[in-house]
Amino acid sequence: MKKLKIVSMSKYLPQKIESKKLEEEFGIPLGWSEKYSGVKTKHWVTHETNAFMGAKCLTYALKKANLKMDDLDLIISANATYDYPIPHQAPLIKKELNDYGTQVPCISIDTTCLSFVTALDIASYLLDGKRYSKIAIISSEISSKNLNPKDFETFTLFGDGASCAIVEYTENDESFVYGAHMMTKEEGAEETIVKGGGLRFHFKDYAYNPEDYSFKMKGKNLLRLAKKYIRPFIEDLFVKCGVTAKDIDFFIPHQGSKMGLFLFEKIYPEFKGKVANNLNTHGNCIAASIPMALYDAIEDGKICRGNTIALAGTSAGFSIGGIVLKY
Amino acid sequence: MKKLKIVSMSKYLPQKIESKKLEEEFGIPLGWSEKYSGVKTKHWVTHETNAFMGAKCLTYALKKANLKMDDLDLIISANATYDYPIPHQAPLIKKELNDYGTQVPCISIDTTCLSFVTALDIASYLLDGKRYSKIAIISSEISSKNLNPKDFETFTLFGDGASCAIVEYTENDESFVYGAHMMTKEEGAEETIVKGGGLRFHFKDYAYNPEDYSFKMKGKNLLRLAKKYIRPFIEDLFVKCGVTAKDIDFFIPHQGSKMGLFLFEKIYPEFKGKVANNLNTHGNCIAASIPMALYDAIEDGKICRGNTIALAGTSAGFSIGGIVLKY
Repeated sequence: MKKLKIVSMSKYLPQKIESKKLEEEFGIPLGWSEKYSGVKTKHWVTHETNAFMGAKCLTYALKKANLKMDDLDLIISANATYDYPIPHQAPLIKKELNDYGTQVPCISIDTTCLSFVTALDIASYLLDGKRYSKIAIISSEISSKNLNPKDFETFTLFGDGASCAIVEYTENDESFVYGAHMMTKEEGAEETIVKGGGLRFHFKDYAYNPEDYSFKMKGKNLLRLAKKYIRPFIEDLFVKCGVTAKDIDFFIPHQGSKMGLFLFEKIYPEFKGKVANNLNTHGNCIAASIPMALYDAIEDGKICRGNTIALAGTSAGFSIGGIVLKY
Repeated sequence: MKKLKIVSMSKYLPQKIESKKLEEEFGIPLGWSEKYSGVKTKHWVTHETNAFMGAKCLTYALKKANLKMDDLDLIISANATYDYPIPHQAPLIKKELNDYGTQVPCISIDTTCLSFVTALDIASYLLDGKRYSKIAIISSEISSKNLNPKDFETFTLFGDGASCAIVEYTENDESFVYGAHMMTKEEGAEETIVKGGGLRFHFKDYAYNPEDYSFKMKGKNLLRLAKKYIRPFIEDLFVKCGVTAKDIDFFIPHQGSKMGLFLFEKIYPEFKGKVANNLNTHGNCIAASIPMALYDAIEDGKICRGNTIALAGTSAGFSIGGIVLKY
């Protein structure tokens, strides 16, 4: 049991996009997006940067918790996409607020789609060990700039968005983290990839082309890995946490793909009716998907104080991770 | 006191480069590199990727500690430069080893030049809180691909290299972390930058040019920030750790620049003769600088078991961070 309480959450969505309109514009068979990707609408940035969306979320979450920047003692950016190659994302979010009076430190944590879960796991140890007392975790993701309209699978699937959670050390036992678990099967490390633009395929040597500079997913291979490892992984997570499937009031899986969510519900039929699903209206928003779905579930009253909830998913890497907490 | 012991360290350097040769080749006044950047030789990659150098270091460090991959329970990549935009670096390092038998999880932590210090700080809480018992922290950095030969300051300063530390939970009190401290003054967030190639200046919209796609540093502004904040920061760090400057047997500052190191020795004359300096032979290797200097100091017998050491520095962000440990 690690002493962590989620005190407030927020969400930012850029402009809404109808999948139908994208299909018409880019010559994708009508209905393809919803049928295969499960996405009817999503949101893509117009003017927004990662820092802009992250700062909006941080401001809302602080306001909801009746806190100001100086009350925080750590800002974690938990993201896989970034404004600049250098520096990392967290200080850029803080800079966007244009309020330079504080010294709140900024760090960035990246486990691709699991970044929020990893950051929450790490934050629980930093809080419980009394390194910090209030931490903001921000996942702000822009996928839309790295999509290839000819790759229907990724183009119709990915969305943009951001979310922030403020977590604090709490003396009482009403909210806490039961535990967390993670595994990496690196043979899948290149099966979800943006190949061009890093140091291996440098933009100096490889001219821009939508094929090499966009998201690529080997969906079937990823589902094969997920199918093999998810059930034993979740069992291990629950054992580590001292809970059983029956104890879980609400389950938030990463909104990775329609097939992934379908597979999860098939593997764990006992969670029927208790599984978050915002894929149809948000798409896969990388690390922002899990906290946005958590925010929605709290706002919609699907999660109440005292509920036991699990957040879990797969991520490019290939990793599986999860955390169980008493909200 | 957090229970963490550094059990082994390693280092990898790619091909050696004489600054003199670079000066001749790129029309830089002879002697400029050593005079202004303080760099006589450094190392730049030929065939190596970040993952390649990181994997070499991980292999050496495991061998020195007489451990195998399966003995680890976490791999942290603590770096600011990366092979691909997606996925993050840690699983790519593990994949390079071509040994897919384990499920050791992989996460990446980025605070630019302070990534190793941040990872060590976080690792101390994960070990002390018994989330993990053995963690590999790897900093593998390639700066040379993002340098502009016309910008003498950065072109002559930056080097490539990698280092790995394996840290473990220890029951006895001979090795531990006293404490750590960090602050971010985000008004300096864009004063050390690689502007092009992220989402804000996307390679789709901004054709490659060495000016926008290379490291840029506003050296004078950074020194001004460092001058203002470093002394009070180090005082705070020592107070948090319950130590005084006299207790420090060896100090490892980030090898940021000749002026930065000079300034540090001026601010803290009491450390004279106890400060690591490998800038002349390695250049600034971003997050790999601090662990490489730590490795060298241990190998050279400047740091022995039981010594109290401090690692600290500034990083793009702009942040200052430090950690004090009993080695």
